[in-house]
Amino acid sequence: MTTTSPDDGFTVGGETFGSRLILGTGGAANLHVLEQAVRASGTGLVTLALRRVDTAPGTSGGLLDLLDRCGVRLLPNTAGCYTAAEAVKVAHLARDAFDTDWVKLEVIGDERTLLPDGVELLRAAEELVADGFTVLPYTSDDPVLARRLADVGCAAVMPAGAPIGSGLGVGNPHHIRLIRQSVEVPVILDAGIGTASDAALAMELGCDAVLLASAVTRAVDPVAMATAMRYAVEAGRLAYGAGRIARRFHALASTPDEGRPDL
Amino acid sequence: MTTTSPDDGFTVGGETFGSRLILGTGGAANLHVLEQAVRASGTGLVTLALRRVDTAPGTSGGLLDLLDRCGVRLLPNTAGCYTAAEAVKVAHLARDAFDTDWVKLEVIGDERTLLPDGVELLRAAEELVADGFTVLPYTSDDPVLARRLADVGCAAVMPAGAPIGSGLGVGNPHHIRLIRQSVEVPVILDAGIGTASDAALAMELGCDAVLLASAVTRAVDPVAMATAMRYAVEAGRLAYGAGRIARRFHALASTPDEGRPDL
Amino acid sequence: MTTTSPDDGFTVGGETFGSRLILGTGGAANLHVLEQAVRASGTGLVTLALRRVDTAPGTSGGLLDLLDRCGVRLLPNTAGCYTAAEAVKVAHLARDAFDTDWVKLEVIGDERTLLPDGVELLRAAEELVADGFTVLPYTSDDPVLARRLADVGCAAVMPAGAPIGSGLGVGNPHHIRLIRQSVEVPVILDAGIGTASDAALAMELGCDAVLLASAVTRAVDPVAMATAMRYAVEAGRLAYGAGRIARRFHALASTPDEGRPDL
Amino acid sequence: MTTTSPDDGFTVGGETFGSRLILGTGGAANLHVLEQAVRASGTGLVTLALRRVDTAPGTSGGLLDLLDRCGVRLLPNTAGCYTAAEAVKVAHLARDAFDTDWVKLEVIGDERTLLPDGVELLRAAEELVADGFTVLPYTSDDPVLARRLADVGCAAVMPAGAPIGSGLGVGNPHHIRLIRQSVEVPVILDAGIGTASDAALAMELGCDAVLLASAVTRAVDPVAMATAMRYAVEAGRLAYGAGRIARRFHALASTPDEGRPDL
Repeated sequence: MTTTSPDDGFTVGGETFGSRLILGTGGAANLHVLEQAVRASGTGLVTLALRRVDTAPGTSGGLLDLLDRCGVRLLPNTAGCYTAAEAVKVAHLARDAFDTDWVKLEVIGDERTLLPDGVELLRAAEELVADGFTVLPYTSDDPVLARRLADVGCAAVMPAGAPIGSGLGVGNPHHIRLIRQSVEVPVILDAGIGTASDAALAMELGCDAVLLASAVTRAVDPVAMATAMRYAVEAGRLAYGAGRIARRFHALASTPDEGRPDL
Repeated sequence: MTTTSPDDGFTVGGETFGSRLILGTGGAANLHVLEQAVRASGTGLVTLALRRVDTAPGTSGGLLDLLDRCGVRLLPNTAGCYTAAEAVKVAHLARDAFDTDWVKLEVIGDERTLLPDGVELLRAAEELVADGFTVLPYTSDDPVLARRLADVGCAAVMPAGAPIGSGLGVGNPHHIRLIRQSVEVPVILDAGIGTASDAALAMELGCDAVLLASAVTRAVDPVAMATAMRYAVEAGRLAYGAGRIARRFHALASTPDEGRPDL
Repeated sequence: MTTTSPDDGFTVGGETFGSRLILGTGGAANLHVLEQAVRASGTGLVTLALRRVDTAPGTSGGLLDLLDRCGVRLLPNTAGCYTAAEAVKVAHLARDAFDTDWVKLEVIGDERTLLPDGVELLRAAEELVADGFTVLPYTSDDPVLARRLADVGCAAVMPAGAPIGSGLGVGNPHHIRLIRQSVEVPVILDAGIGTASDAALAMELGCDAVLLASAVTRAVDPVAMATAMRYAVEAGRLAYGAGRIARRFHALASTPDEGRPDL
Repeated sequence: MTTTSPDDGFTVGGETFGSRLILGTGGAANLHVLEQAVRASGTGLVTLALRRVDTAPGTSGGLLDLLDRCGVRLLPNTAGCYTAAEAVKVAHLARDAFDTDWVKLEVIGDERTLLPDGVELLRAAEELVADGFTVLPYTSDDPVLARRLADVGCAAVMPAGAPIGSGLGVGNPHHIRLIRQSVEVPVILDAGIGTASDAALAMELGCDAVLLASAVTRAVDPVAMATAMRYAVEAGRLAYGAGRIARRFHALASTPDEGRPDL
């Protein structure tokens, strides 16, 4: 009972990562701060958009060099795509540019909320899986859609806690639990995280990892927040495994009455 | 902006502690597990009830030896007292027994909820402060009562998040924020914590420390949960200082639209 | 400002209803109680499943007679269908049986949660709209899916607050608000309601109506709960239109200080 | 099971009221709107501050005339008092001015939150009860304090949901439930209500009545909101008595599978 096995890490797409925190690169004030935040977060997997990097050889000091220095794996995304066709095309470009068949698949359905379009997403996922990609789809927190994405061969499902950059946290914890029950692949909470307790909660709900960008990159102190997120994800994972106490309406004395001194 | 000063610890009653987690000892299955949990938690301050220890010289293997080995400071409590007079008497006995003038002051008002009786608590606090005690009162989350306790010279205020052992978390975050605004002394969230995200949230609300017992001692794996709480408190504190992003109704793209490849 | 125009009712599919409460018939202990509940609720629109009624002429005392006596409009549903094809077939059978082209379209995606399958739902909706049905789809609370259902010509969208019969209320108020913003057709909160305040909240979020069954039919006292829901829906609608006060962190005295008597 | 006895009203201090809504008069734009709101709310009990009225004989058109026309009982309050002595003095002045020994006892402890000071409140309550007053104390939501107020003979306890005028609703539903369990006298939710669902929730938690002012008087349309509150309180009370369905993690089909047509 009390011999705690340390967290042996998180496996997705056949790769094992020591950290359960995945970091997005958007929103950082500059590369120097971003590098410090990446290092402070302890992450081993970082997302980036094709259009945000200059991939030409010889370009120095850029995002790719930074991520290479940090020793993290790249996870290109298809941010800004509104149809399956567009997302598939960007995924292929990214595969060539970054020499990886991993893709964070985004097919946006609404420009104000940036929430995904499930129908287009499922279509793109099927096609990319068939093309040999390791597909990690950014999806809504709809449990049935999540299961269908897993069914077509996605390597994980990545439900939104809340809209990208909103900082609203996990809008519907019940849905995250339902998703955790309905798929075998890893569940990665993606989008909406605002602060450390949100990340801890996501892990306590059974998520295998948390992906966030703005919560760190747009914080007043991104490096401190990256450290906070690192600890929060670890805390939430440990708590999930540690078997929390049940909720009780009334109290349960931690100090029993026996043995009180006579007064 | 990005030069994060490390947490320089938490000062209460003139003492500085490296950890912002305070552990209660009640509810532990046995001393062996408790010792592992105390060490895993990183705490420097541990509460205990007078009646739970044999303080006679020569008693070996007991709770006091354990805490001595762990190098933590003792914080005797007055658990089980229902009147100011009783609590004052127990505080004096504890001062003699443990050779410390620190006391976690509990005056219980209801045996089902174990919530404090504010009127008796304030009376006991005044008397003990006058007697030279360093008084840390376990109080309700009533903001006015908290301020009055600070006004009579308590070294900290320790509002309940929820009933002892209930695991319900922070029942009223708004009250904790109001308390944080209304007193100068440290605010320590005491009671109600169930899991790691609760502890992180308490810190994000501005608490200076968190006190918990059952959440660790009665977890299925107390040592894993103690570790989780250690990280959660650290995460919450860092996040509190890092300046979290604002909450937004709609999304804010982390990846701007500029520079997208033409498709 | 103070001339309150009375609620002029709720229009969907070209029909106007005096009540914004839609009642499901499943779960009722017997027809006698159901009739009392229908009458107490004040509803003008009641859902029923094809298989729950004997539609043969001359059958007396049945559900159809009851609803006819109550003077409510029928809204057949496609409960129990797991594919678009199945749902379309049941919709056609129901049109013939009940002589109405209105259909509450359900395409279930998961038997434990009974949450809808968005992809199949959208397919069925398109087909039924093309066939001249007035389609009211039971959907998840995914804002993008809701907008797509509206785009293909559904007469309303009916997002789940929580799983059918769960009594969990509105799981994600933010999503309901987003849906309200993203479509022009009526938004009807369907499924998950447990008690009166859930229904009031749904209306305050901007829903045009609430559909519920178990909350009434399985309550200990269905008729009292039907009455409660009638008032709750009305209360929530009025409050939505009345312009509630803003939320404030601190207090705002209702009684100003001026004019206090000298003491 | 299905024979619903109509709500037989709410008894406090030996008086029975048909409505469970108590209205405060502060914050109204003018007397005309206030009168409409009082009538729309259906209330039979209205609070007012001594200093807000001119009680000299012959004064016409004032608040007292209005309330007299509406046929409601007066409940003078001690708004603005910060000590027991002050509150007791104002209560006596109000008894003389309004010819009633009923008093809504307020002893404010903090000018930003206007939350009550429990110690002073209890002292004032004891004194006024001894003086023959019917005391309805505005208290915090501290369950032990509420019980002590009942123990000294208060006719009801009136816990704050949230600070006066804040519109934050019921900040700690658990505390309201605990209070409901711990006293025999009526529990009246007083302060913090923002909108209709807040009032319904308060009643579902077991409150006997709801007292509010700003939520109505400062709404954009006070008369519509007064009507909403009337319905919400009635809805919540009925739902409380109707025996709501249990919360379930998964779904419970309202339509059973038996009898589906073969397709």
